[in-house]
Amino acid sequence: MSTGFFGNIAPVTYEGLGSTNPLAYRHYDPDEIVLGKRMEDHLRFAVAYWHSFTWPGGDPFGGQTFERPWFAGPGVVETMDDARLKADVAFEMFTLLGAPYFCFHDADVRPEGATFAESAARLDEIADYFAVKMNETGVRLLWGTANLFSNRRYMAGAATNPDPDVFAYAAATVKHCMDVTQRLGGENYVLWGGREGYETLLNTDMGHELDQLGRFLSLVVDYKHRIGFKGTILIEPKPQEPTKHQYDYDVATVFGFLKKYGLEKEVKVNIEQGHAILAGHSFEHELALANALGIFGSIDMNRNDYQSGWDTDQFPNNVPEMALAYYQILSGGGFATGGTNFDAKLRRQSLDPEDLLIAHIGGMDCCARGLRAAAKMIEDKALSDPLAKRYAGWQAAEAQAMLSGKRSLEDIAARVVNEGIEPQPRSGRQEYLENIVNRYV
Amino acid sequence: MSTGFFGNIAPVTYEGLGSTNPLAYRHYDPDEIVLGKRMEDHLRFAVAYWHSFTWPGGDPFGGQTFERPWFAGPGVVETMDDARLKADVAFEMFTLLGAPYFCFHDADVRPEGATFAESAARLDEIADYFAVKMNETGVRLLWGTANLFSNRRYMAGAATNPDPDVFAYAAATVKHCMDVTQRLGGENYVLWGGREGYETLLNTDMGHELDQLGRFLSLVVDYKHRIGFKGTILIEPKPQEPTKHQYDYDVATVFGFLKKYGLEKEVKVNIEQGHAILAGHSFEHELALANALGIFGSIDMNRNDYQSGWDTDQFPNNVPEMALAYYQILSGGGFATGGTNFDAKLRRQSLDPEDLLIAHIGGMDCCARGLRAAAKMIEDKALSDPLAKRYAGWQAAEAQAMLSGKRSLEDIAARVVNEGIEPQPRSGRQEYLENIVNRYV
Amino acid sequence: MSTGFFGNIAPVTYEGLGSTNPLAYRHYDPDEIVLGKRMEDHLRFAVAYWHSFTWPGGDPFGGQTFERPWFAGPGVVETMDDARLKADVAFEMFTLLGAPYFCFHDADVRPEGATFAESAARLDEIADYFAVKMNETGVRLLWGTANLFSNRRYMAGAATNPDPDVFAYAAATVKHCMDVTQRLGGENYVLWGGREGYETLLNTDMGHELDQLGRFLSLVVDYKHRIGFKGTILIEPKPQEPTKHQYDYDVATVFGFLKKYGLEKEVKVNIEQGHAILAGHSFEHELALANALGIFGSIDMNRNDYQSGWDTDQFPNNVPEMALAYYQILSGGGFATGGTNFDAKLRRQSLDPEDLLIAHIGGMDCCARGLRAAAKMIEDKALSDPLAKRYAGWQAAEAQAMLSGKRSLEDIAARVVNEGIEPQPRSGRQEYLENIVNRYV
Amino acid sequence: MSTGFFGNIAPVTYEGLGSTNPLAYRHYDPDEIVLGKRMEDHLRFAVAYWHSFTWPGGDPFGGQTFERPWFAGPGVVETMDDARLKADVAFEMFTLLGAPYFCFHDADVRPEGATFAESAARLDEIADYFAVKMNETGVRLLWGTANLFSNRRYMAGAATNPDPDVFAYAAATVKHCMDVTQRLGGENYVLWGGREGYETLLNTDMGHELDQLGRFLSLVVDYKHRIGFKGTILIEPKPQEPTKHQYDYDVATVFGFLKKYGLEKEVKVNIEQGHAILAGHSFEHELALANALGIFGSIDMNRNDYQSGWDTDQFPNNVPEMALAYYQILSGGGFATGGTNFDAKLRRQSLDPEDLLIAHIGGMDCCARGLRAAAKMIEDKALSDPLAKRYAGWQAAEAQAMLSGKRSLEDIAARVVNEGIEPQPRSGRQEYLENIVNRYV
Repeated sequence: MSTGFFGNIAPVTYEGLGSTNPLAYRHYDPDEIVLGKRMEDHLRFAVAYWHSFTWPGGDPFGGQTFERPWFAGPGVVETMDDARLKADVAFEMFTLLGAPYFCFHDADVRPEGATFAESAARLDEIADYFAVKMNETGVRLLWGTANLFSNRRYMAGAATNPDPDVFAYAAATVKHCMDVTQRLGGENYVLWGGREGYETLLNTDMGHELDQLGRFLSLVVDYKHRIGFKGTILIEPKPQEPTKHQYDYDVATVFGFLKKYGLEKEVKVNIEQGHAILAGHSFEHELALANALGIFGSIDMNRNDYQSGWDTDQFPNNVPEMALAYYQILSGGGFATGGTNFDAKLRRQSLDPEDLLIAHIGGMDCCARGLRAAAKMIEDKALSDPLAKRYAGWQAAEAQAMLSGKRSLEDIAARVVNEGIEPQPRSGRQEYLENIVNRYV
Repeated sequence: MSTGFFGNIAPVTYEGLGSTNPLAYRHYDPDEIVLGKRMEDHLRFAVAYWHSFTWPGGDPFGGQTFERPWFAGPGVVETMDDARLKADVAFEMFTLLGAPYFCFHDADVRPEGATFAESAARLDEIADYFAVKMNETGVRLLWGTANLFSNRRYMAGAATNPDPDVFAYAAATVKHCMDVTQRLGGENYVLWGGREGYETLLNTDMGHELDQLGRFLSLVVDYKHRIGFKGTILIEPKPQEPTKHQYDYDVATVFGFLKKYGLEKEVKVNIEQGHAILAGHSFEHELALANALGIFGSIDMNRNDYQSGWDTDQFPNNVPEMALAYYQILSGGGFATGGTNFDAKLRRQSLDPEDLLIAHIGGMDCCARGLRAAAKMIEDKALSDPLAKRYAGWQAAEAQAMLSGKRSLEDIAARVVNEGIEPQPRSGRQEYLENIVNRYV
Repeated sequence: MSTGFFGNIAPVTYEGLGSTNPLAYRHYDPDEIVLGKRMEDHLRFAVAYWHSFTWPGGDPFGGQTFERPWFAGPGVVETMDDARLKADVAFEMFTLLGAPYFCFHDADVRPEGATFAESAARLDEIADYFAVKMNETGVRLLWGTANLFSNRRYMAGAATNPDPDVFAYAAATVKHCMDVTQRLGGENYVLWGGREGYETLLNTDMGHELDQLGRFLSLVVDYKHRIGFKGTILIEPKPQEPTKHQYDYDVATVFGFLKKYGLEKEVKVNIEQGHAILAGHSFEHELALANALGIFGSIDMNRNDYQSGWDTDQFPNNVPEMALAYYQILSGGGFATGGTNFDAKLRRQSLDPEDLLIAHIGGMDCCARGLRAAAKMIEDKALSDPLAKRYAGWQAAEAQAMLSGKRSLEDIAARVVNEGIEPQPRSGRQEYLENIVNRYV
Repeated sequence: MSTGFFGNIAPVTYEGLGSTNPLAYRHYDPDEIVLGKRMEDHLRFAVAYWHSFTWPGGDPFGGQTFERPWFAGPGVVETMDDARLKADVAFEMFTLLGAPYFCFHDADVRPEGATFAESAARLDEIADYFAVKMNETGVRLLWGTANLFSNRRYMAGAATNPDPDVFAYAAATVKHCMDVTQRLGGENYVLWGGREGYETLLNTDMGHELDQLGRFLSLVVDYKHRIGFKGTILIEPKPQEPTKHQYDYDVATVFGFLKKYGLEKEVKVNIEQGHAILAGHSFEHELALANALGIFGSIDMNRNDYQSGWDTDQFPNNVPEMALAYYQILSGGGFATGGTNFDAKLRRQSLDPEDLLIAHIGGMDCCARGLRAAAKMIEDKALSDPLAKRYAGWQAAEAQAMLSGKRSLEDIAARVVNEGIEPQPRSGRQEYLENIVNRYV
């Protein structure tokens, strides 16, 4: 039974390129077979509660712009009824869009209680409500997570707080969210280090805080195994904002951190386009690096404006960029437990319920086009053939001997002198390859 | 015997705060005792050949501005006589400044030969020339390094080149530079990954290139031990420029790389202020992180303009920033084999020989002021006392039990519920601490 | 009668360099004579309501951290009693600090009413309350302004809104705020173009919006003259945030805008350090440019973190930077109706009332040190003498003839050929000048 | 007769979407009619000498990578024979590509002479050589310009140099280049303020330098009229690099400058994508603003990497971005004397002559796709219809009265109160519009 929030809208379907219906897919055809698999099974779209259903439209210079029936009005506090109505509308939207997954923070889905126990009880209550809806709609849970950054108790960090009571409180919260995630069949559990970082080094003992964070993650991994949670533990890197420096800066930093605490086989990364940009990297860089390091997990498909210095969290809309991203994902074998998560947010001027649907439709279409282009490049070996040729010299026996450690520095130096090696550069053909990509997008 | 390049200038000495002589130190007093050690022995200044003696003043939009007697004129190639004159002037400047150390790239000090063997022979010849001068002046070698980025053979990387012959050539070059560095008593050997990175992912196999780089570094470390080189192997992180992405992005990235290839106990970092800035970090962040990770080695005291997106490599001039940097260095125990290296460059309009002296004097004075302020803060425990108080809660037995892994997630969660823990935030006192620092600078 | 908010704190006084009292000035001595004028009369400090008394400590990832007695709790709306208590504490702080001025937005000081008329009536009521307090304390009003960006009606701009009713509403609001400002003896009226800009060009008619903005400003200027307001109309430039592009990008952009609408003699700029940084300029650049263009008015002394891409609005703490800023201000003749306004905000972890005082004290001390250093450089002609020498060639008759337009391009070209002019570059002496500055800070 | 540089390559022709020939156009069909005009006549492609024929492939960390037969080898100086060979190859490439225009700096096309007179004579000689080639090939001159930034005499600026002799030398140079441009039928004359800016404010009198620049430009405009040059005088804005601050920062800054010196009707802007990015703007922003201010002239289609902080000057390759750019250009009426100029440079690893062709082909195809998409959006009123609707309220009589100045602030305020105006926000529909654009690209 419809909440009426979206009016009389029919489920969004694939209508193809000829369509000008803003409420139809022009590219996303869930059943289309791409590289031998259904498009839906490649992309594994998940809609996040966070921005879509709980963000009021505020920014640092202005307050609420969205008026949602489930928002508590001025001078009123959010109730469990509000939370249930929010869930009703959310599942309605998941169904309208045909999104196979959703995901949430604990704080997105239930009002904060007066005590830890009350907050937990409320989450359990909503989880039960979710279970019914998931069963009715077939929508599954891509991941759950705990919001360890919005409440003022976390202002100086959760796991990395100077106060061990906050560490404990955060640990208890994560335990409970993991329990709920497991109960709802979640395929991953995410940790975003919202305030795990610092505002100023002047009041920060970075070594101590890193050790706190390493311990916290170890506790989570141990618990996962103990309860038999089959999903993946994911860290979502971000370089700064809200804190001046976030410890999970980027993929490379997270990898070093995991190695330091012996967790590199236990934890993978959930990479956000916008966070990659803020760290000075391209999205495809972060994906390629995660593949190279063996820690690729999932993606958060929120675009950042390249020229805004904060997390703009926009819906993706540049197809050539998405093609390069999915090219990396497909080259690494595609998603296992991960998926394509939209934590993107409407612009705060996009007031209408329809805007919420349209934004997701555009983002999903953009991803579908990118995926299709990437798959075709892979089928044609459009990029992989030239790449193999460029590195072909390393297949020679002597090159392999160097690479595998069978030659010492002296051996190699002697060979350079003896053979009079004077290497000649060869064209990198960057523009040629860029033009190739443009044939596909 | 003077080359006359600097005219009739007397050695630069400490004249104290009252001096307005632009060719005197107002703060750098080598013999002043700071925290029980001579200032010179704390700072361990080293002048680099690179920008000071070999850079012609060009930038991407203009050519040579400096007219040095050792520069080959238009239509003429550099000779060994030029190289010797350059050495004469360089050692004259080291002596005038009273700098205890110098450092160099191979390509800075000898003209490139027609073959590898000829280049090597020329380097040996200049090294002999250096040995005499070092003996005469008492100036020591902080580090040597090989320029693996300027010659076109390295345009697609040295160790990470798609052509294994370039890898071999680079390996032979490094071997020879390490030999020369050892012969001259160098206290460190530096690797800056000039073009170890990529211009475009489209033609790059990042995993392969990282393995190449790991192998290369392992070869260097093995060789170091085989020849009994007592110095430290240093990597200098930089995020981008000249390549779009450099593999040694920042301290955290280098740490992960070292861990991946099992080299974290063998290699340390040479941190440049300017490279820290380009990576989106403060200089003190990189220093604090290197301390926390146990890989701090040395510093390259080149300031970047915060608002220019390329490596501006300026002389340091902001005392409060230097104070925070040396505060981290001193807090970590100070330099072992490392030092304060000036790879900074004159602005290209600073044409006069005197400008070269003045720039070093200003930079050294700025460091000396920073060091003195940092030492005083340490003596007064001005920052460390408030820090200890902020983390004091972690000294409690239960907190230590959590941190050391004696408690499981369930244990902690149970305690939160049982004890009804609801942590209350405490002021981070950032402005108070900033004001404290301002008392010292 | 004290509100008790700050506890038992005595007025903050100048105790000099020897003091380690965090609640005393070490540098700001209001009565010290600098360049023939009292320090207080140079600096003209003003405390802004905005961040200090109305910001709850939220950021895009977290809510309120500050608990102020005048904040409405959860589930409660702000009352006029809250507003009066806020005013009581604010004036208490102005007095404790010895700040001669304050400033405010309408929305900072009164709760929004249900209608325009109710909001206006509430502002009038608070203005009367202010008038009494100003009389009691001697604190004056540096400027008033209207908040035309927080309420959702302004989400697409105020003067530049696509809806002319919003333009009208904004115009009415400004008229009323100007009336109040005049009534309270305000020395300036400020317009910050909070949302005068765009989120996306796709829905923006930039030419139309610029014309709207030009008209709006003309209306304001006309009204000022009509009511005999003696103060200065000030525009505060900012490049982005909250909108992707703000029309008042920087000083140069504002100047072009003023010229286009014939207002360059009527309106001046209120320059914020943080906004300068976000626009890619140094603070001193914006000051120097405003001086050169004849539109310098006032400053908003909020520092930005150079490495955060949003408006961090921190208290100033780098003395060398402040010295260069006040050097430009003093070189241009100092403030007329303008002053040094602190719109800076506490870090959200700085919870204690004391932090609010300490932050202002540190910022004011930093400004005082900067001012004193700048004044000394001016007295010594430390920078102006070398500058005059560098441009001395332009004093020659032929150079003046070129500059004043008495020579044509042909004349000049003929002279170059006839006289065989081949100019030789001279050192720019940048490092020398940087060292000079370091003698003063 | 072929120089043989490009081997046996046939002229590049349009082969359409089905082609996989890297040396054919897939989108650029010069004769295709778009909005009633030939595609060639819309795009007006011009190939620039600068990067394509004179840049040796160097960057701040490495030297020449390109080996061109017209480059002087090490130890040899460039001759007029080299310059002629370069011209032969250049015109061969223009012809192969079917580019209707070329453009150049004086320093690109002739070796610098020992004196001003010799440099001028050499330029005249090459201009004669060009005249013959232009006649033979039909290639026309889009614009000429003088390089006032590479030679060391200009290290501290040309028009803004502290030395009036440099001003004079620059003036004489521009006069001569204008003469040559006119002689060759150039349709524009460009001024890029290469070093018109400063490295440090400490040695800069910004007001004086702006007056110098204003005078210089006035001289140029006066001369243009005197010689009857029919082309447009163009300024190319850039925010920084090579200098820390360039006076022609962006379109808004240039507009203010032109207004200050009364030149806003005489001079237009040549907008580069890469320079827009460096200034913190999107390309389409700069284009839209230039249209709104009435100073749009021409474009320099060099893309910047959004994440590199220097001028990367790459060939365009993102079609959605080009579509938005040409949308602005077409919306403003398209080019008059301007065109689409490629000052873009090959990546320094793109060594082969073929790379030079391929890069231009890819860039031209990208522009052609962008143009076609933009034209279709215009024909369909895909964006202009929603835009008109959004601003429709301003067509009302009372709104027009406000905008045209027929209402005072008091009038408007009275109406707000009397009519009880309380405006309600309407959705900005950003995502809807973004999805619309994605239908076209």
